[in-house]
Amino acid sequence: MFKLHGIYAPIATPFAGGEIAYDKLGKNLDFWLGSDLEGIVVMGSNGEFVLLSSGEKEELMKFVCARAKGKKPVIAGTGAESTTETIRLNAKAAEAGADAVLVVTPNYYKGSMTEPVLARFYTEVADQSPLPVILYNMPRNTGINISAKLALELARHPKIIGIKDSGGNIVQIADMIRNAPEGFCVFAGSASFLYASLALGATGGTLALANVFPNECSRVQSLFEAGKLGEARDLQMALIDSNNAVTARWGIPGLKVAMEMIGLYGGDPRPPLVPLKEADREDLRKVLAKTGFLPKAS
Amino acid sequence: MFKLHGIYAPIATPFAGGEIAYDKLGKNLDFWLGSDLEGIVVMGSNGEFVLLSSGEKEELMKFVCARAKGKKPVIAGTGAESTTETIRLNAKAAEAGADAVLVVTPNYYKGSMTEPVLARFYTEVADQSPLPVILYNMPRNTGINISAKLALELARHPKIIGIKDSGGNIVQIADMIRNAPEGFCVFAGSASFLYASLALGATGGTLALANVFPNECSRVQSLFEAGKLGEARDLQMALIDSNNAVTARWGIPGLKVAMEMIGLYGGDPRPPLVPLKEADREDLRKVLAKTGFLPKAS
Amino acid sequence: MFKLHGIYAPIATPFAGGEIAYDKLGKNLDFWLGSDLEGIVVMGSNGEFVLLSSGEKEELMKFVCARAKGKKPVIAGTGAESTTETIRLNAKAAEAGADAVLVVTPNYYKGSMTEPVLARFYTEVADQSPLPVILYNMPRNTGINISAKLALELARHPKIIGIKDSGGNIVQIADMIRNAPEGFCVFAGSASFLYASLALGATGGTLALANVFPNECSRVQSLFEAGKLGEARDLQMALIDSNNAVTARWGIPGLKVAMEMIGLYGGDPRPPLVPLKEADREDLRKVLAKTGFLPKAS
Amino acid sequence: MFKLHGIYAPIATPFAGGEIAYDKLGKNLDFWLGSDLEGIVVMGSNGEFVLLSSGEKEELMKFVCARAKGKKPVIAGTGAESTTETIRLNAKAAEAGADAVLVVTPNYYKGSMTEPVLARFYTEVADQSPLPVILYNMPRNTGINISAKLALELARHPKIIGIKDSGGNIVQIADMIRNAPEGFCVFAGSASFLYASLALGATGGTLALANVFPNECSRVQSLFEAGKLGEARDLQMALIDSNNAVTARWGIPGLKVAMEMIGLYGGDPRPPLVPLKEADREDLRKVLAKTGFLPKAS
Repeated sequence: MFKLHGIYAPIATPFAGGEIAYDKLGKNLDFWLGSDLEGIVVMGSNGEFVLLSSGEKEELMKFVCARAKGKKPVIAGTGAESTTETIRLNAKAAEAGADAVLVVTPNYYKGSMTEPVLARFYTEVADQSPLPVILYNMPRNTGINISAKLALELARHPKIIGIKDSGGNIVQIADMIRNAPEGFCVFAGSASFLYASLALGATGGTLALANVFPNECSRVQSLFEAGKLGEARDLQMALIDSNNAVTARWGIPGLKVAMEMIGLYGGDPRPPLVPLKEADREDLRKVLAKTGFLPKAS
Repeated sequence: MFKLHGIYAPIATPFAGGEIAYDKLGKNLDFWLGSDLEGIVVMGSNGEFVLLSSGEKEELMKFVCARAKGKKPVIAGTGAESTTETIRLNAKAAEAGADAVLVVTPNYYKGSMTEPVLARFYTEVADQSPLPVILYNMPRNTGINISAKLALELARHPKIIGIKDSGGNIVQIADMIRNAPEGFCVFAGSASFLYASLALGATGGTLALANVFPNECSRVQSLFEAGKLGEARDLQMALIDSNNAVTARWGIPGLKVAMEMIGLYGGDPRPPLVPLKEADREDLRKVLAKTGFLPKAS
Repeated sequence: MFKLHGIYAPIATPFAGGEIAYDKLGKNLDFWLGSDLEGIVVMGSNGEFVLLSSGEKEELMKFVCARAKGKKPVIAGTGAESTTETIRLNAKAAEAGADAVLVVTPNYYKGSMTEPVLARFYTEVADQSPLPVILYNMPRNTGINISAKLALELARHPKIIGIKDSGGNIVQIADMIRNAPEGFCVFAGSASFLYASLALGATGGTLALANVFPNECSRVQSLFEAGKLGEARDLQMALIDSNNAVTARWGIPGLKVAMEMIGLYGGDPRPPLVPLKEADREDLRKVLAKTGFLPKAS
Repeated sequence: MFKLHGIYAPIATPFAGGEIAYDKLGKNLDFWLGSDLEGIVVMGSNGEFVLLSSGEKEELMKFVCARAKGKKPVIAGTGAESTTETIRLNAKAAEAGADAVLVVTPNYYKGSMTEPVLARFYTEVADQSPLPVILYNMPRNTGINISAKLALELARHPKIIGIKDSGGNIVQIADMIRNAPEGFCVFAGSASFLYASLALGATGGTLALANVFPNECSRVQSLFEAGKLGEARDLQMALIDSNNAVTARWGIPGLKVAMEMIGLYGGDPRPPLVPLKEADREDLRKVLAKTGFLPKAS
């Protein structure tokens, strides 16, 4: 069965003229599929999944899975507000050839998303999922936290194989890891706390920054696993500012500009997201350049 | 031009067998359209709009507008995460015959929804809207607040005619009212602060509780406007517990059960929302009964 | 027995050379005691009570009560983190001649300040208080909210006569008012929601802004009680910006500068609070001047 | 100069009959001073410092420093709302023979505690402090966060030698560590994230749990420094539940009961804190017993 391990990039969705730019995406995929990454996440938060129509989601999964086939595993973000739509997208992800699905918490009706309601949601989704299910905890965007208690309760479901925790509460991450049943893996949801998570027993991460620095992000984990802790830690430290720049500070617009700085296609995000301002682009370049990881020519 | 005034019910969407139950909805509409309500809001938060597909939204608007035609105005909730989808739904609302659109803040990318970004979103939406646009501030669900400053900036747009403020910050509501340009109206978004909002100059409200007690909610405003402040205030006080029961405490599942208690069709909400438990139904009945407003037979 | 009614000023504590400037305070008191205010609150949040030593608190209460004697009632802020210290200060307030005490929630150990713990705290304090006790809800400073449920439970204690609610949650204020036992009064804790609170049945308020505009603040209530609602509402609206300036925006340093603008002694706050910058003073003057309530010469 | 390294216990203050029980404290100190702990913190949050009078604080520092002299270093918690009082207590700490002072952020006037105001506070305090100053970041109690940016700005002050960060934001901790100037140390403020902090370069911690399990807490660090990472991590994991029990879950009352379970004197906390209920004591014993670290006889 599919097992969560290593570094995944939650890939950006490129647009041109308002539509998904598949030719550009193909070239970007060539880069990521040829990198040290373990795999690809399509339609994660950084993939602007909430800005895609149902039809676009199906088409996008098909395209990415076809390109990645035989090269790297693909995890598809299929979480939706409605249980039915999530289940439907899971079936489509399986048809497309994805290896697992990543399911964010429904979040508009926050007040009603109690732990029992979330437990029921994930159980119904997992019961009907043809693919392994990964919980997706993203409190910054959803306003909801999947507690260690809830995650561990759901971890007993045979289809639920892990959690991507983007909350960054290191005690919660430790709680999940130490009480996880065999086979349930915890993934760091951001490059900023990757090393600390690995130190506690996380098996990898899904990192926005891995769109831009896939090999460097992967090296944090390979150094850690080789016992080269000092080097791993130093590399982690070197990545924090860049990570902050393409997440909290400038978000998806920043991520897309950063991708252009390494030679990928970035393009504009879908509205209401707005392209980065010129001055911010310059600041972003400086932050990235400080790492020394940008290609020479850029 | 359409002007925001009076009490609107943000109607619940009835489901049967997982699908929209149009026959039941028709009967519910007969009740609301024959009540003292000023109008109807379709696909508000209480209408489970985030759980409907794009196709269902179009169909639902058509059905409700056709039934309401010549009887009461209809406001359609068309806000979506994507600007394009919001604009598309606004066009469909106009085709269906709605009188105005209610547009919630995009909210998944909270960190990116700064005031300038929200200003741009609403401006683009209003520029292309065939119908008057009402801002929808719903911080409890979205994690985002439309500040008085932002609302007043947008109030200068000729198509933006008001705001439904469900946040309940009475100072913010006062700020909007006292600085609003001619023709921009402020609507209370909950029965719990309707009277206080009217006292400050709000022109009405869109109230979940108006699904259940449309005449009583409307009477708060008519008493207020007739200068019978003591009676208006007493009625307001009598509605607070019921309002809390069908909003914060039991949410949409509670609202649907409350509707059944006055003889309407409620039915189950769409998953992940779960039906009310038996014990909670009893508690809810007691809360509603205490008002003395339930029909005798129930 | 003492009854909460009308507008109180929570007076600023003037310092000169780091010490309480009693001569300046005396002159300020002449102004407030000669105004339309109902009474005075000494050692409220605006009185920098947490920056005073126990000895200073005793001395300050004595001074203010002696000056106010026979003129206006004095409420003394005696809340401290420790129950024992609160009880001790209540005894001193009685000795000094205060009419009632205002007791803020202990707040450093937020996680331990559950409703039962707060209920026990206030009950112990009230049991041993020689003076009527007023609950003080100040979530912005304490991070703790006294819920309507807790307030109403405590309202049954014969010594507990009311609450000053500075939280501004108008639904909570309505909840307290409609369920309050005879004799338990609700006071607005800020000029920004005074009118809305009065409309719901509050009996007055303790308002930072009343240090600066005592007569105007008092007139909101007298107009309201005379049934001149439009005028009361307009005056309320005119006070919002000034209130914001001397509370949320510039805090105590702003309040002290505003006092200087009407001819009182303001002086510097105690460190760590810092005096207002020159540019902010100018902005503050403009905000206050816009009301038209500043004395002509200033 | 004094350097922050190793595990410190922020010792509980024992009371009997409402007064500090110095005889009990003496015996408790014998235990801690004979343990593997690096040192002692007197009047930290767990020492109920906000419930002590100024006089008690001076006396308590003297007593603890006299007992610890020649055995282990003592850090004194001297933070107060007022700058002047903090400076005064720092002088008293030096007289008493403390090695450093721990200064929490003033926090009642949260809205005024901007970064420049906090910077000025700490600079004034450090300028006049005869002892090295340690910043104390305790957002759970204060509602205020000392950002990495502010900490690093203050780290340039020659008297400011480190920070105890109890917030547990591991990215913030990483940020401080990687940019800290030579000699500025970062201390974990809770046993729950000690290992993760050490992995990133923290030099130790001040841990409530070290009152109860001083040797086990110290062993996490000694194992880590000896390169026995697996053992250190396992021990960390074993301590999480106990730590949660004596911090977030049952707070100081729980800590005092836990102390009794290892043969120390606990006693009741000062009101408004309330003693643990009997049922909670049993639950706490189970949590602690699960570690296997309780003494056999208990």
